[in-house]
Amino acid sequence: MVSSIQNLIQLALAEDIGSGDVTSNSIIPQNAKAEALIISKSDGIIAGVDIACEIFLFVDKTIYPEFFVSDGDRIKEGQKLAIVYGPARSILTAERTVLNFLQRLSGIATDTSKYVSAVSGYKAKIVDTRKTTPGWRVLEKYAVRVGGGNNHRFGLYDAVLIKDNHIAISGSISNAVAKARNQVPFTMKIEVETENLVQVQEAIDSGADIIMLDNMSIDMMYQAVNLINGRAIVEASGGIRLDNVSAVAATGVDFISIGALTSAAMPLDISMDVIIGGNQGES
Amino acid sequence: MVSSIQNLIQLALAEDIGSGDVTSNSIIPQNAKAEALIISKSDGIIAGVDIACEIFLFVDKTIYPEFFVSDGDRIKEGQKLAIVYGPARSILTAERTVLNFLQRLSGIATDTSKYVSAVSGYKAKIVDTRKTTPGWRVLEKYAVRVGGGNNHRFGLYDAVLIKDNHIAISGSISNAVAKARNQVPFTMKIEVETENLVQVQEAIDSGADIIMLDNMSIDMMYQAVNLINGRAIVEASGGIRLDNVSAVAATGVDFISIGALTSAAMPLDISMDVIIGGNQGES
Amino acid sequence: MVSSIQNLIQLALAEDIGSGDVTSNSIIPQNAKAEALIISKSDGIIAGVDIACEIFLFVDKTIYPEFFVSDGDRIKEGQKLAIVYGPARSILTAERTVLNFLQRLSGIATDTSKYVSAVSGYKAKIVDTRKTTPGWRVLEKYAVRVGGGNNHRFGLYDAVLIKDNHIAISGSISNAVAKARNQVPFTMKIEVETENLVQVQEAIDSGADIIMLDNMSIDMMYQAVNLINGRAIVEASGGIRLDNVSAVAATGVDFISIGALTSAAMPLDISMDVIIGGNQGES
Amino acid sequence: MVSSIQNLIQLALAEDIGSGDVTSNSIIPQNAKAEALIISKSDGIIAGVDIACEIFLFVDKTIYPEFFVSDGDRIKEGQKLAIVYGPARSILTAERTVLNFLQRLSGIATDTSKYVSAVSGYKAKIVDTRKTTPGWRVLEKYAVRVGGGNNHRFGLYDAVLIKDNHIAISGSISNAVAKARNQVPFTMKIEVETENLVQVQEAIDSGADIIMLDNMSIDMMYQAVNLINGRAIVEASGGIRLDNVSAVAATGVDFISIGALTSAAMPLDISMDVIIGGNQGES
Amino acid sequence: MVSSIQNLIQLALAEDIGSGDVTSNSIIPQNAKAEALIISKSDGIIAGVDIACEIFLFVDKTIYPEFFVSDGDRIKEGQKLAIVYGPARSILTAERTVLNFLQRLSGIATDTSKYVSAVSGYKAKIVDTRKTTPGWRVLEKYAVRVGGGNNHRFGLYDAVLIKDNHIAISGSISNAVAKARNQVPFTMKIEVETENLVQVQEAIDSGADIIMLDNMSIDMMYQAVNLINGRAIVEASGGIRLDNVSAVAATGVDFISIGALTSAAMPLDISMDVIIGGNQGES
Amino acid sequence: MVSSIQNLIQLALAEDIGSGDVTSNSIIPQNAKAEALIISKSDGIIAGVDIACEIFLFVDKTIYPEFFVSDGDRIKEGQKLAIVYGPARSILTAERTVLNFLQRLSGIATDTSKYVSAVSGYKAKIVDTRKTTPGWRVLEKYAVRVGGGNNHRFGLYDAVLIKDNHIAISGSISNAVAKARNQVPFTMKIEVETENLVQVQEAIDSGADIIMLDNMSIDMMYQAVNLINGRAIVEASGGIRLDNVSAVAATGVDFISIGALTSAAMPLDISMDVIIGGNQGES
Repeated sequence: MVSSIQNLIQLALAEDIGSGDVTSNSIIPQNAKAEALIISKSDGIIAGVDIACEIFLFVDKTIYPEFFVSDGDRIKEGQKLAIVYGPARSILTAERTVLNFLQRLSGIATDTSKYVSAVSGYKAKIVDTRKTTPGWRVLEKYAVRVGGGNNHRFGLYDAVLIKDNHIAISGSISNAVAKARNQVPFTMKIEVETENLVQVQEAIDSGADIIMLDNMSIDMMYQAVNLINGRAIVEASGGIRLDNVSAVAATGVDFISIGALTSAAMPLDISMDVIIGGNQGES
Repeated sequence: MVSSIQNLIQLALAEDIGSGDVTSNSIIPQNAKAEALIISKSDGIIAGVDIACEIFLFVDKTIYPEFFVSDGDRIKEGQKLAIVYGPARSILTAERTVLNFLQRLSGIATDTSKYVSAVSGYKAKIVDTRKTTPGWRVLEKYAVRVGGGNNHRFGLYDAVLIKDNHIAISGSISNAVAKARNQVPFTMKIEVETENLVQVQEAIDSGADIIMLDNMSIDMMYQAVNLINGRAIVEASGGIRLDNVSAVAATGVDFISIGALTSAAMPLDISMDVIIGGNQGES
Repeated sequence: MVSSIQNLIQLALAEDIGSGDVTSNSIIPQNAKAEALIISKSDGIIAGVDIACEIFLFVDKTIYPEFFVSDGDRIKEGQKLAIVYGPARSILTAERTVLNFLQRLSGIATDTSKYVSAVSGYKAKIVDTRKTTPGWRVLEKYAVRVGGGNNHRFGLYDAVLIKDNHIAISGSISNAVAKARNQVPFTMKIEVETENLVQVQEAIDSGADIIMLDNMSIDMMYQAVNLINGRAIVEASGGIRLDNVSAVAATGVDFISIGALTSAAMPLDISMDVIIGGNQGES
Repeated sequence: MVSSIQNLIQLALAEDIGSGDVTSNSIIPQNAKAEALIISKSDGIIAGVDIACEIFLFVDKTIYPEFFVSDGDRIKEGQKLAIVYGPARSILTAERTVLNFLQRLSGIATDTSKYVSAVSGYKAKIVDTRKTTPGWRVLEKYAVRVGGGNNHRFGLYDAVLIKDNHIAISGSISNAVAKARNQVPFTMKIEVETENLVQVQEAIDSGADIIMLDNMSIDMMYQAVNLINGRAIVEASGGIRLDNVSAVAATGVDFISIGALTSAAMPLDISMDVIIGGNQGES
Repeated sequence: MVSSIQNLIQLALAEDIGSGDVTSNSIIPQNAKAEALIISKSDGIIAGVDIACEIFLFVDKTIYPEFFVSDGDRIKEGQKLAIVYGPARSILTAERTVLNFLQRLSGIATDTSKYVSAVSGYKAKIVDTRKTTPGWRVLEKYAVRVGGGNNHRFGLYDAVLIKDNHIAISGSISNAVAKARNQVPFTMKIEVETENLVQVQEAIDSGADIIMLDNMSIDMMYQAVNLINGRAIVEASGGIRLDNVSAVAATGVDFISIGALTSAAMPLDISMDVIIGGNQGES
Repeated sequence: MVSSIQNLIQLALAEDIGSGDVTSNSIIPQNAKAEALIISKSDGIIAGVDIACEIFLFVDKTIYPEFFVSDGDRIKEGQKLAIVYGPARSILTAERTVLNFLQRLSGIATDTSKYVSAVSGYKAKIVDTRKTTPGWRVLEKYAVRVGGGNNHRFGLYDAVLIKDNHIAISGSISNAVAKARNQVPFTMKIEVETENLVQVQEAIDSGADIIMLDNMSIDMMYQAVNLINGRAIVEASGGIRLDNVSAVAATGVDFISIGALTSAAMPLDISMDVIIGGNQGES
């Protein structure tokens, strides 16, 4: 089926290729073949192998990409990740788009893995947010999982998250939770965002399934976790960086959500080197 | 017309809203109105005002967003950027997508402006590359212009860029340029990527319109600029950072292309605060 | 934004209008106006007022439909539901598609309301299933809510429902629940389908959020409800009809899911009568 | 090509799968294989075999569905209709959508066959109307043919059907027919809807190709058939049920159109049982 | 609704504008306004006024085009057809696409009118074929009507046309007609292509609604018309040009189909001259 | 990927096939096979072989088309161009669309080759314009190349062309060129349209890359070429026909652009004859 991922690939290829790759089409013979290596230029976690293959095949079904690594593998600078064989024109046309996807997704997986390592030993799990690149939601959340993280809700449609604005309009947390519980599919959990211990207590009393501690101090988080005492899942959120994430984990929260996982990840440097075959100019 | 930008907005809203915003729809009355402020939480250059408005209107034609700034304006932490008035549900549904676009585009404009400042006084202009986020090409190149940069080609379709792989298959630079000149629209320029002075000389002799100096040392760039001596436009590329960009500009090149402008820009922190009106619950 | 509902409207109008309404276009003058009444020909609950308006506007933005009823209103045979004013050609072109939507959605709302009435006095709520007409999921689930029912999950993406096949492959209920808990967004609930009391006990032990009693006898449902004793939400499912639904509700289950709500609802009979204005042939 | 049917399949899978089948993807190993039987749970006429296969392949090209029956075959309760082999995840993801299509189309074919049987011995043929489920026109009309019925026009584009509203605006039947005859492709037939014998006579005189007897009594139909006397094709329409259809056929009409064929057919009960292979967890 | 015509406009604008009109966007101030005249540079029949307006509005909703002529009007060289007011950038961006549509459609209408004039006095009507420009079927058939012609079937879906190949596979004309009569909607006419009088007789006997005389001599056409004697509609086809069309009409055929109407029409020369207003640079 | 060409094929097949080919589907057995020859009925240059194959496969992946000629080959009246083997229904369904594409593209290639021959011996090259059939830009420009011509810019996005209107708004040619040079990607060329020698001199002074001589007399063209003297590429445009094109070429211009190449080409007559196999009726 045509998924949102395929729509994004389609959009990406359309914007790059447009009315045609004038360089490859004018210089490279139509029947020339090529081999190319995809090589990592830094250490990290690879993500996006399947989508890279899909992009090559979108451009030309006769390209044959073979990856030596799988998503989630730790890769080293200089490591050969894949060999690609097929029509030279098509490989060159696909190159930039393939790399742009691989670099971005691997960057996210790599950054996520650092956060995951930083909280190892604690029960807390690292989760993403909705601060994803528009158009990339499913892919970027996948890359977070590849990096060892877990996912928060995918969008506005698959879980209730009651924020200050919703509470203000409803009058109270308990009112807001009651309305949601009555209206949304009973298969959905309801989360409430809290900023202080009074709100935490209200959220507990309202029967919220999940309580988010938003931008709280470490000290207040300890108190909130004690207050909740297992009656709801606890999520810490806001202002969490690699240098303070383990302190947050130490408070006993269940999940730590970090927007920077997807909005501020550096691309992992990956390149493609074309190896010219011997017979491509003859036929 | 339905542009690639509208396709991206469509994709972004679809992935976030899916079958509906269960929180807003269950908690907020259908006829509740709200006002919201969009506020900058850091200093930078704003970009994306028009697209932010377009997203609000995509979600609900009765939202009325009013921005106090225009793309390219320098903004300060704490500055009010816009006020948004309309149905409370719709504003909350649009919030995250609007912010994700604004933050990303403003981040690119802000970063670009730093590079542009760094080369002020030199004739060299800062340009982007094709290392853009797939699906975002036109938008990100726009943000680079907003930040004071210029654009390299938009894709594979609007200029010829002959790289090492093309040269290898064609046998020589002169052969590759000749083939391209004969095949592509005569309205297009032809650029050749070079790695040393021998290649630079070949590119000059082939009649290339633009010569790229790829990953050359500062010293070699000086020699290349002298060798070319105005017979072609000169572009420096590869490994250029904020701390060495002025040294590159000093060599006399015409353009400096930087992939990090679009692939490694940090989002600018921008938030939305809903101000609840007094009459939303009554009607 | 272009929602799945708009895609369906588009598909519906395209299949009916195709290359043009040859009858109206050949017989009715382009500038003829008409008024039409939409009238109910049976008793029931109306649903689809907004989508009916949207269809008229899709066909022609200058049609002006005014409804006298809102979704959820109880309507009587012979009741005038709406008056529609605009270009005669366009109103006739839209007629069949509008009625097909209104009849189907109102039929579902009407049938649902009968089940809801049948369990009044019990805590059990009536919910739908995924046995919806392909392409109509969001609309039909909306009609169920209009009729007073609640919704089960919208699709495969917004809740976990572990069925016998999943259990068989995983080896056990506890294994399946554990895997799901570890992989899916922590914001999602996990439901387990059970066929007997042994499975119910396993589901309780695995920490399932919801336990479905599938095709159980009334007697076994009583025992299951007692066994679960509030440790999970309880859903009854399978073979439930209007004549036995209150007996199911009496067992103390929380939700009763009924596929026939959407797959076997009779359309509510609604028609459109065009009232010819006096000036349509003159201008 | 991308037909309207493929658009509907796409819409159906998108609404059910959304951002992913969280249950199957989290519980079932990616390389697990499964076999499944599709079994009828009631007697009827099967329709939709090809589209069922197409849906499986839309979800996953490596699913291998093999049907033992063809569209139009009479099937029995308990009969094995197909065996499906392939990746366990994909089969479970496709299951509900496949069954929703099969059940609906087979239900229509089954109901149609009852009407066809009821008029056997008469020349009258059973035909459908435009009271189809929006989005399903081509499929439902196909199911009617599978059940032994014939088709009325597919939409507003492939035949002229002049109704009371058209007549009212044109001033007379003869005027309306003349206008249509002059404007529409000469390859199209023109049908006129009549409510009494005066109108029937006018329709004959106007040269209509087909005359519809709308909501007439059995007695009036006899007279109309005599009046027309072979000068036009005769269609009976309105209020025709299984218990009065043979009386209508006995009047000598050529075609009997029945909206309930498509708008009120009960789904045929068909289910899928997964048979777990022994090696799916090992590879 | 999104019709096939809007898809074509979308395709046309996308291929011309792509990532943006670099000339207008760089040279013309964003707020500059302009007036432009659309002027005919030859005599003919205008067609496409509505679609021209639609294209302007697709590009920019604030363009205001006002036409002084309606489709079907006879226009003269030098005649002002329209004045267009709005943003200068947008008008220039839309110009070429608007003219390409207007010129092509007006060319078809103009050519058609010549054929229609040539057979005036005869009962024969001029009709088009399916030799239309792919993507333009509905528009080109509309232009034929504007020029005074009538339409043959719109596509493979709205009438049966049995050609030699169908006959060969079926064994005989009578067999082919019988099969079609039994299978297709009874609302459709059946046409048979014949090449000689024996086939004409078979077509009559089979009860064909329309008989096409394909590539027959004038003499044979006379005999065929006599043979058919009103028992079927008669269409002449094949090798008919402006210089022999009246001879064909004189044979008494009902319709004359001409592929060149749409496949070989010359565009009518129409241009746009921008009149610069005095205030465009000031605001 | 889904290119604009595939969108056009999709549009073309949708408009012709609609809800189904009623003739083939009713008369020809589903399993009947056929062979068909594609034959040229006039002399010319073939273009569109690949797209013809693609259309056949769009309709039915099991059609096997084999062409004996390649794009650019000179073909003769009566020459067999291809043999097509596959399901009889599908071949007949695809026939008209395939021929419509082949005839149009081959017509353009054939006409272009006549212009190219007419200027042989001169350095001037024949190029197209943007006067293409909307929706067909990439295909028609391809056909021009097949006929031996070169391409002008593909659209508004890949080169700057400053016309009188742009100049008028900017105040002067030099001002317009300067603005464009500052704003557009530096990889793009800038062309200026001139109508007299004063403008030519201004265009030279402004540093334009290309100067268009628009509707100039042969005499003025000679002077313009002398004036420019190699400092810019020279394009002649306007009012150029097959009978005066060599005189234009003799002036020494580099390129001659001709709108009629694409807007006024006659289709090349090509037909398909089905050869019936012996076994299609048996299975």
